[in-house]
Amino acid sequence: MHDDPLHSALFTDLYELTMAEAYDAEAMNKQAVFELFFRKLPAGRNFCVAAGIDELLTYLESLHFSEDDISYLKGRMLFSDRFLERIRKLRFTGDVYAVPEGTVVFPNEPIVQVVAPVIEAQLIETFAINQLHVQTVLASKAVRVVTAAAGRTVVDFGSRRAHGVDAALKAARASYLVGAAGTSLVLAGKQYGIPIFGTMAHSYIQAHDDEAVAFEAFARLFPETTLLVDTYDTIQGIRKAIGLVRKLGDRTRVRAVRLDSGDIGTLARQSRQLLDEAGLQHVQIFVSSELDERCIAELLAGGAPIDGFGVGTRMVVSDDAPHLDIVYKLVEYDGRGRIKLSPRKVLYPGRKQTFRQYQDGRMIGDIVGRHDEKLAGTSLLQPVMVNGRRTAAGRVDLEEARANAKREIAALPDAVRCLDHADPPYPVGVSDRLQSDLNDLRMKQERS
Amino acid sequence: MHDDPLHSALFTDLYELTMAEAYDAEAMNKQAVFELFFRKLPAGRNFCVAAGIDELLTYLESLHFSEDDISYLKGRMLFSDRFLERIRKLRFTGDVYAVPEGTVVFPNEPIVQVVAPVIEAQLIETFAINQLHVQTVLASKAVRVVTAAAGRTVVDFGSRRAHGVDAALKAARASYLVGAAGTSLVLAGKQYGIPIFGTMAHSYIQAHDDEAVAFEAFARLFPETTLLVDTYDTIQGIRKAIGLVRKLGDRTRVRAVRLDSGDIGTLARQSRQLLDEAGLQHVQIFVSSELDERCIAELLAGGAPIDGFGVGTRMVVSDDAPHLDIVYKLVEYDGRGRIKLSPRKVLYPGRKQTFRQYQDGRMIGDIVGRHDEKLAGTSLLQPVMVNGRRTAAGRVDLEEARANAKREIAALPDAVRCLDHADPPYPVGVSDRLQSDLNDLRMKQERS
Repeated sequence: MHDDPLHSALFTDLYELTMAEAYDAEAMNKQAVFELFFRKLPAGRNFCVAAGIDELLTYLESLHFSEDDISYLKGRMLFSDRFLERIRKLRFTGDVYAVPEGTVVFPNEPIVQVVAPVIEAQLIETFAINQLHVQTVLASKAVRVVTAAAGRTVVDFGSRRAHGVDAALKAARASYLVGAAGTSLVLAGKQYGIPIFGTMAHSYIQAHDDEAVAFEAFARLFPETTLLVDTYDTIQGIRKAIGLVRKLGDRTRVRAVRLDSGDIGTLARQSRQLLDEAGLQHVQIFVSSELDERCIAELLAGGAPIDGFGVGTRMVVSDDAPHLDIVYKLVEYDGRGRIKLSPRKVLYPGRKQTFRQYQDGRMIGDIVGRHDEKLAGTSLLQPVMVNGRRTAAGRVDLEEARANAKREIAALPDAVRCLDHADPPYPVGVSDRLQSDLNDLRMKQERS
Repeated sequence: MHDDPLHSALFTDLYELTMAEAYDAEAMNKQAVFELFFRKLPAGRNFCVAAGIDELLTYLESLHFSEDDISYLKGRMLFSDRFLERIRKLRFTGDVYAVPEGTVVFPNEPIVQVVAPVIEAQLIETFAINQLHVQTVLASKAVRVVTAAAGRTVVDFGSRRAHGVDAALKAARASYLVGAAGTSLVLAGKQYGIPIFGTMAHSYIQAHDDEAVAFEAFARLFPETTLLVDTYDTIQGIRKAIGLVRKLGDRTRVRAVRLDSGDIGTLARQSRQLLDEAGLQHVQIFVSSELDERCIAELLAGGAPIDGFGVGTRMVVSDDAPHLDIVYKLVEYDGRGRIKLSPRKVLYPGRKQTFRQYQDGRMIGDIVGRHDEKLAGTSLLQPVMVNGRRTAAGRVDLEEARANAKREIAALPDAVRCLDHADPPYPVGVSDRLQSDLNDLRMKQERS
């Protein structure tokens, strides 16, 4: 096993390791249950789409400290040799329950539940939150963009502005998960089997002395070319594109024109008119340029004749809601429920399950209860890993997860699916038994 | 050379590869100059701190397509065998000029300038922007947090909420670059030689039946422990911490208490008073809980007796400005300046240099000119790579870059350094010769 920087055991906050040594020294390594969830939706969001579970399972399957890791830790002069020997052999041996990727989730619903000896369960916190957070944040933004595009093609063009290499990969995956057609990022295509798309850059046009020469050279080489027409003057660019299609006389060479600046709605209408007048109804209009779900909705509401959207920066950094308050909390240790009474941060004790109710194929409300309750509705948490190995439910490929996301989004109440704030919000309740477990523990804690 | 996912040649937008094939087919591989810069500052920011250059040079030094990459590309049925053979041998052979990491930069000032055969220079665009973007965005946010803390300790606690593994590493590095004391992320400590810090989590307290027992077990194991006191009742937690210090009778065991919820300012004052009354003036107060530069400035303006800040989410996603409009633009090909006339996106042609003027050790204004002009002031762009190999100026370690950032920030005009909007902004002008180069090319373009 070589050191994979994207799946390192050292991708952990220092306190996870010092707590691990403390647990070890205290001979406290009983079974713990941690739950990963978010507490509240970002302003303007009505739901989130869970993503990142597959990546977490991949991490857990290969979790180990390399000799290099151990030697770095030894050099910190903080850990005992006994503890370093202990973690040299550490592997993840626990069970994991999770909602299927692509599932719609709401505040306080466990997305992932880890049942493992406390040292293992604690150590994985940083990576678990990091990956569930970034992928859920990005999927929950991308789903809004796909919704706004109302069936038109959406392609992730954001790799250059995503926060680092890993985020760019995860943005491509997360947007594909929720219905984007693909990505411009070749590595994501290779890694996840996602379709890859591309047009041309302004620099390519600029490097040629003549825009028309650049168009022709490119189109002769690649079928289904999308010509970038706005380097100098968009309407002139469209006219040159029309001239080229006529000259080539081949319907397969030029598939679309791309507009990347200016007043996109007006330019799209003018371009469509020029193309139609030239009998080029089959040449599509693809647009980019600082798009997000609001711009797309406005363009389409204004009747702009656009066939596809290349969406970058604002989607892949989730600019209006770049973070989600995802936490990973101990809810049970050694068979007993645990709570926390910090102000404004209430935690319900014990292992939970979310029960989702449907009516006529639409979601009508969720109840978070104890994991051993039998309430009406579909149970969202499924066992995805047992004793450190994936179950069948833990081996869901991206296409299946994408189909799940599509079903989930279709089943949302219309007011929750839409871009505007849903009032009232989607109802999520707590079961009577879970509430009484909290009350009992609180009384006990206050007496102690 | 194995496939390192953080430095893959396939971390590129598809169009970079199709353009490369087009250039190759057209026998167009003359020297190109690309410049990387941002066009405008995010609202509320007065300057940025350049970061990510070292990572780009590392990428360029090892750039290659693996057999696996070639075979994936072949499977796309898009590229000719001739082209795939060509890129199998591709290495980066160009020159790179850049500002030293930690340098303060303003709109339209080149941060990186790549001089290379156009195919190589074009191919690296996606990675170059991605890394310069994320690191510059994060450094430019972190410097505000460090400024607000006014000399008190700042530690990066954000790994779990940074956008993926790479962003977490880069957030740790970027915040250290601009003056944070270190990070909680162990992998960043190993990778960059950054000091690592940690306290304890609520889960550790919760797993014990008694908070005081948890405190004692941890403090006996680790010197300089920071006790997390807010799991149940903060003031009770402080009293238990005081009891423990008295019991242990060892000044080195408990270094600080940490407040992570509630009204931090009031709790810090109450805690300080209790600690002082107990004669524990040496026990510090460390706070966390959704901090950013504004909260920190307010806490300190209100006189809160705080010694250090653990800063997470808001800093590491740069929540108020999660992106910067960094671009990478062709400015010269085959010895001739290139421009672009897209609406609202003016591009000055040709290789440039930024000349920074100082008065009494303070920066007073910058001029962006032609690279071969001799203007007054310090030239910001330095050669960091020649013929694909780092120069001495390209081998600056993180400690040197951190010292550079410290000097740069100290040399800023006070109004620019502070958290509020600077009006007028820091002056950045364009030299007469550069302006006339643009005018000449525009006239030529409009005539053509």
